[in-house]
Amino acid sequence: MRAKDQTENLPISTGALPGSTKIYVPGKQFKDIRVAMRRIDLSPTIDEKGNTIQNESVVVYDTSGPYSDPNYTADPHKGLPKLRAKWIEERQDTYRLEALSSEYGRERRADKSLDHLRFEHIEDHPLVAAPGKRVTQLAYARRGIITPEMEYVAIRENQLCDEIKEYYKKEKGESFDAHLPELITPEFVRDEIAAGRAILPANINHPESEPMIIGRNFLVKINANLGNSPISSSIQEEVEKAVWATRWGADTIMDLSTGRNIHETREWIVRNSPVPVGTVPLYQALEKVKGDASKLSWEIYRDTLIEQAEQGVDYFTIHAGLRWQHIPLTMNRLTGIVSRGGAIMASWCTTHKRESFLYEHFEDICEILARYDVAVSIGDGLRPGCIADSNDEAQFAELRTLGELARIADKHDVQVIIEGPGHVPMQKIRENMDLQLDLCNEAPFYTLGPLVTDIAPGYDHITSAIGAAMIGWFGTSMLCYVTRKEHLGLPNRDDVKEGVITYKLAAHAADLAKGHPAAYFRDYAMSKARYEFRWRDQFHLALDSETALKFHDETLPAEGHKTAHFCSMCGEHFCSMRASKNLHDRIKGEEE
Amino acid sequence: MRAKDQTENLPISTGALPGSTKIYVPGKQFKDIRVAMRRIDLSPTIDEKGNTIQNESVVVYDTSGPYSDPNYTADPHKGLPKLRAKWIEERQDTYRLEALSSEYGRERRADKSLDHLRFEHIEDHPLVAAPGKRVTQLAYARRGIITPEMEYVAIRENQLCDEIKEYYKKEKGESFDAHLPELITPEFVRDEIAAGRAILPANINHPESEPMIIGRNFLVKINANLGNSPISSSIQEEVEKAVWATRWGADTIMDLSTGRNIHETREWIVRNSPVPVGTVPLYQALEKVKGDASKLSWEIYRDTLIEQAEQGVDYFTIHAGLRWQHIPLTMNRLTGIVSRGGAIMASWCTTHKRESFLYEHFEDICEILARYDVAVSIGDGLRPGCIADSNDEAQFAELRTLGELARIADKHDVQVIIEGPGHVPMQKIRENMDLQLDLCNEAPFYTLGPLVTDIAPGYDHITSAIGAAMIGWFGTSMLCYVTRKEHLGLPNRDDVKEGVITYKLAAHAADLAKGHPAAYFRDYAMSKARYEFRWRDQFHLALDSETALKFHDETLPAEGHKTAHFCSMCGEHFCSMRASKNLHDRIKGEEE
Repeated sequence: MRAKDQTENLPISTGALPGSTKIYVPGKQFKDIRVAMRRIDLSPTIDEKGNTIQNESVVVYDTSGPYSDPNYTADPHKGLPKLRAKWIEERQDTYRLEALSSEYGRERRADKSLDHLRFEHIEDHPLVAAPGKRVTQLAYARRGIITPEMEYVAIRENQLCDEIKEYYKKEKGESFDAHLPELITPEFVRDEIAAGRAILPANINHPESEPMIIGRNFLVKINANLGNSPISSSIQEEVEKAVWATRWGADTIMDLSTGRNIHETREWIVRNSPVPVGTVPLYQALEKVKGDASKLSWEIYRDTLIEQAEQGVDYFTIHAGLRWQHIPLTMNRLTGIVSRGGAIMASWCTTHKRESFLYEHFEDICEILARYDVAVSIGDGLRPGCIADSNDEAQFAELRTLGELARIADKHDVQVIIEGPGHVPMQKIRENMDLQLDLCNEAPFYTLGPLVTDIAPGYDHITSAIGAAMIGWFGTSMLCYVTRKEHLGLPNRDDVKEGVITYKLAAHAADLAKGHPAAYFRDYAMSKARYEFRWRDQFHLALDSETALKFHDETLPAEGHKTAHFCSMCGEHFCSMRASKNLHDRIKGEEE
Repeated sequence: MRAKDQTENLPISTGALPGSTKIYVPGKQFKDIRVAMRRIDLSPTIDEKGNTIQNESVVVYDTSGPYSDPNYTADPHKGLPKLRAKWIEERQDTYRLEALSSEYGRERRADKSLDHLRFEHIEDHPLVAAPGKRVTQLAYARRGIITPEMEYVAIRENQLCDEIKEYYKKEKGESFDAHLPELITPEFVRDEIAAGRAILPANINHPESEPMIIGRNFLVKINANLGNSPISSSIQEEVEKAVWATRWGADTIMDLSTGRNIHETREWIVRNSPVPVGTVPLYQALEKVKGDASKLSWEIYRDTLIEQAEQGVDYFTIHAGLRWQHIPLTMNRLTGIVSRGGAIMASWCTTHKRESFLYEHFEDICEILARYDVAVSIGDGLRPGCIADSNDEAQFAELRTLGELARIADKHDVQVIIEGPGHVPMQKIRENMDLQLDLCNEAPFYTLGPLVTDIAPGYDHITSAIGAAMIGWFGTSMLCYVTRKEHLGLPNRDDVKEGVITYKLAAHAADLAKGHPAAYFRDYAMSKARYEFRWRDQFHLALDSETALKFHDETLPAEGHKTAHFCSMCGEHFCSMRASKNLHDRIKGEEE
């Protein structure tokens, strides 16, 4: 029986982005690697003598997966091609389970009433590490092994910047001791992972995802949060939101669903996601005990970890750093505990008057994660929820515990990142970064914003992008987006896109400021196109070509204005670019 | 005859902002001073025992003028009340001219065909300094005189923060040597103006404007650019845009009109603006020579300065720092000269092969400005238009000239601010601020953004807000907004509002980071309201209450949800604030 109801006729955003061609760059060490990139071809420059000069294409990092390849026919009912399946298989260190290991997973599978919601080609025999084998990218890296995933990532990060002939100039950056090589090699990737300074999230049960890396010495990444809430949205909307978010640049997505059928929703999302998927397993565990945090237990949580690991979730946020002893530190806070996971665990500890089971079982957790190569994102349950609570003792006490847990994960060969705030005024941002690097042994930092003021609800994509750009520059590896609906409601499709673009620009600004070798060229090409009034090229090079085109066309829609030497901002006779260009052409003419 | 046609039935945004009361704080030294502020009254807190505890009102800086006073009946045909007229008169150092001094002004006045466009109560006898008198706020400050304008500003800047009893806590800031007293006194204002570290723009012919101050040791200000372009918009739209921009927080507006009838449009804007108005006189001078820059002359420019000074323009952007010798420095730039004024002057110098008449006549210019107390904003004609051109030799060579000109203005008792970039990646922003302070003797810096990347057209309010928040923190006194239409077209009313709110949040983030005494309380009150689920208070405390309310109501419109302990973002059972509040209430209960 084919999936019906909510999942019938899923509308999925597909097709090439404007002016863009999907290209695939082959591996050198691994011949079957084909790294997807987006090439933006530009129109030629006409110089002051009327000569035509070709402009080099700009190749950009592409998170959109096969959906943006016009040769690919998307079918969310089937899911994406299993890009990494062969690589995983060839390592010969995993085996297929006879059945799902999680009790809950088996129950849901057996429940016929859910058939109409279920992803059709569901995997009843997930992969798991063979006895005695360590299947994490960290374990391989430590053993000196370069995996195909690592070479993929190296090629992907370079964006072919070594092939740029013209215009290529590196902007001198300030990288705060980040080490950014001219060209990233697979060996560099391996070394960064081995050192724990970067992670390559790649659950062996999510072979559809295209390898990517999160680390301070690579491009700054962004995450988009998705997921239905009990108030609204369906599976259909959530799958499209995931594809939509990656279309505009989300490097990972987190499925934070809290409503009904989250197990089935997640299956659809993972099978259709070209990027790593993160979750907060505690949310689902809480659903299982009908929202009563006091009924949570290690057993229920453990089963949830296994259930989700076997579905292919690539990283888990685990709030294991919030200890019982930290709770009194929050009593005089203005906004208490604003992390959902943090609030749940604090409630549990207070009710049972004992240490958090996540903290106590962290070694057990790591052993489970290692079997599937699920990375751990150690949650900051005590992140500040307002300016007044920023950088307080509660926050930093937890951060010290996060560092301690990072070392445990590392010991188990589990890839680890550390979550960070939150609401922090500008002058206190740097301290967050410096302390995190120091306390957590340079494990990648993954922050939510931070928001630099509390007083702009409806604009928190912006209050947070300010903090995100700064902390990204200082060394944060991944920025979790905030939409304009933050504090007010659930984001819709437009909000998700705007949030993604806002964070792409913040991450890119950080890359530029760090002096990342590949970051500069797109700005260069954009500004050259701007100065030469190549309007179409400007739209195509924009992070959001559709919006740029739409805004331009609001006042000057005619086709002729796509090559006009002015726009409606200043009009023909007051365009400074036009005047300046004419002047420079004149001076050049006189000089000859 | 009453003004007709374009100006009939002007729709003007009036009325109180949601949840706000207009209050007037009296002066101490000058009894007739009534400083307008906006008071946001909050609903009470219900504590865990059910007790009702009153929350202190929050008083915020108010730029909206009489329009937001429900007791005021706005009539744009009459213009605003002349708040400062008596103060100016009582100084007895000015006199009324027999007729307009500007030839062009007289011509326009005599042209009957313009009567239908003209502001009705036009002033044919503008004020000018009496012979031998210096009427600038700088001249008064230097002579040790505290003017009513200075006391107004002192009261305004404090926002009654000395009266806040509860919750008042100063966030420790990093102010980079800015000096922020706990309470601003009229004497402090005088001293800052006398030292040239702040300006109080107050043309004696714009008595309608409410005194405000621009300087590093005061709240960071924002400017909104308005003005029709040859492509679109009417007088009607421009007047409403001005009122609209100040309603949402613009501290000054610049009328950058370049179309027809800009003389008449300006008259309407000045008479109806409660904030200082800036212009770029060169734009109008260029209109007068039909767009042919080579026909510009000192005589035409001089007449334009006088024309606009007698209308009441409070500050002029004058691109006098772009010298003939600087032009070769721009030849290898990627985007040449992107300042309109800069491009015009570079063209003039190149055509005539001689030094800029603005540079050569700068002393004459200052003498004219001093007679009306018009401040000069020395334009950065060579500001970088892209990341590739940032902090280059052309930019900094001009900055050195700006410093030289600032000293000349100062000598003539003319209040002076310095304009700054532009497009600058994050790691190069600080250098701009430090050099400006050093080269320009701490004259206030007034920057456009800066934009921290070139690749996000359609989102340049955000790329620029990142740079604006940072440079505001470092010491910039006023931030010129950028709308999302930048590089693409002329902003509409919604774009103007969004640009203003975006810059208010950037300026506020800068104030917070500097540790400004009055900045912290609004964030505190907002977050307290958030934690206590006082939704209406959150909307009222928001920079844009209307949008915050609208977003909330998209998913939960019912009246009951205005007091509900959750929103649609996480839903009832997953609201961390709710869980945390319940937990804290429980712990407090157990402790007793």
